Amino acid sequence: MSYYAEPIMRLIQEFSKLPGIGEKTATRLAVHILNSSNGYAAALAKSLIDVKEKIKVCRECFNLSDKEICSICSDLDRRDDVVCVIEGINDLAAIEKTGGFKGKYHVLHGVLSPLKGIGPDDVKIMELVKKVEKGDIKEVIIATNPNVDGEATALYITKVLKSFNIKVTRIATGIPMGSDLEYIDAATLGMAIEGRREM
Amino acid sequence: MSYYAEPIMRLIQEFSKLPGIGEKTATRLAVHILNSSNGYAAALAKSLIDVKEKIKVCRECFNLSDKEICSICSDLDRRDDVVCVIEGINDLAAIEKTGGFKGKYHVLHGVLSPLKGIGPDDVKIMELVKKVEKGDIKEVIIATNPNVDGEATALYITKVLKSFNIKVTRIATGIPMGSDLEYIDAATLGMAIEGRREM
Repeated sequence: MSYYAEPIMRLIQEFSKLPGIGEKTATRLAVHILNSSNGYAAALAKSLIDVKEKIKVCRECFNLSDKEICSICSDLDRRDDVVCVIEGINDLAAIEKTGGFKGKYHVLHGVLSPLKGIGPDDVKIMELVKKVEKGDIKEVIIATNPNVDGEATALYITKVLKSFNIKVTRIATGIPMGSDLEYIDAATLGMAIEGRREM
Repeated sequence: MSYYAEPIMRLIQEFSKLPGIGEKTATRLAVHILNSSNGYAAALAKSLIDVKEKIKVCRECFNLSDKEICSICSDLDRRDDVVCVIEGINDLAAIEKTGGFKGKYHVLHGVLSPLKGIGPDDVKIMELVKKVEKGDIKEVIIATNPNVDGEATALYITKVLKSFNIKVTRIATGIPMGSDLEYIDAATLGMAIEGRREM
């Protein structure tokens, strides 16, 4: 590492802290910055500062937004009585891309994970309960990821919402569209058979 | 993309301009920045600005440095009469890591590539000739990459240095250490046989 001048080394170190970026990739990125225009480096630097300064958490759904209430929560065309519970904002973007959901969201900002020491107070579960308590919500769709932590979180949320007279649903697990039964793992295929629907 | 607030979108766009970073990775990096401390975003931003402000090209070897003369050129323990010609600063770091080269470098900042319109005036070849003209250099080791452009550049440099009474050498091509003959491409294996040495 010491073959590079100190400012280059520092940039490599900072890049290496990003997820999925090792020392080699970080070096490649730093060299790219060195070879690109001053304008690009300045624009990237400004975006980094801006995003931390301007982005806040939406008061309603905990989506990230540059306004107090995010664009989805302030959209009058969306249903208020269906709330989709997701782990993070990338899940929100993924669901929005489908174009099939016209309700509101509730971003947990994490999942329960006893192994990592993440309990119910570390994610926005109580905030969801308070939202449901108001009485306007008819259905909560739990769209946490179908893995150990996501499933545990889904079960926990189902439990805490049991006392309310609302529908609590879970997104379907099964074989992905366009895939081959032959290559699907047994757990997924098992869930697909268990969750079969009438034609 | 429009599911994110404008400052997040802008950061994703800026990240996407980095080499090897597509929209998905850029989004993951942006979300990481959102979830990390303000300090980290500020440090990365500062490094980006610093590297463009402080890094200049070494007057001697065209390595990138925060000084007029880079640390390698100003190192009195290194030989002045052997110069290793490389394409870019990442090659310099790669060779330094071997610890086996104690001469100086000459960074071309590119290779000849007629297809990309890069000619001899676009890389630091004349500067190398001027260095050799001074008469102190005994050997020039050409360490451009062993691909079409790198080989063409090596041949071109050999030609322009022909009139000088110095040794011009090329790093060896052959099978990498620890590899299996069976899995080596024919071109490399051919070069390895052609370049065989006496035991």
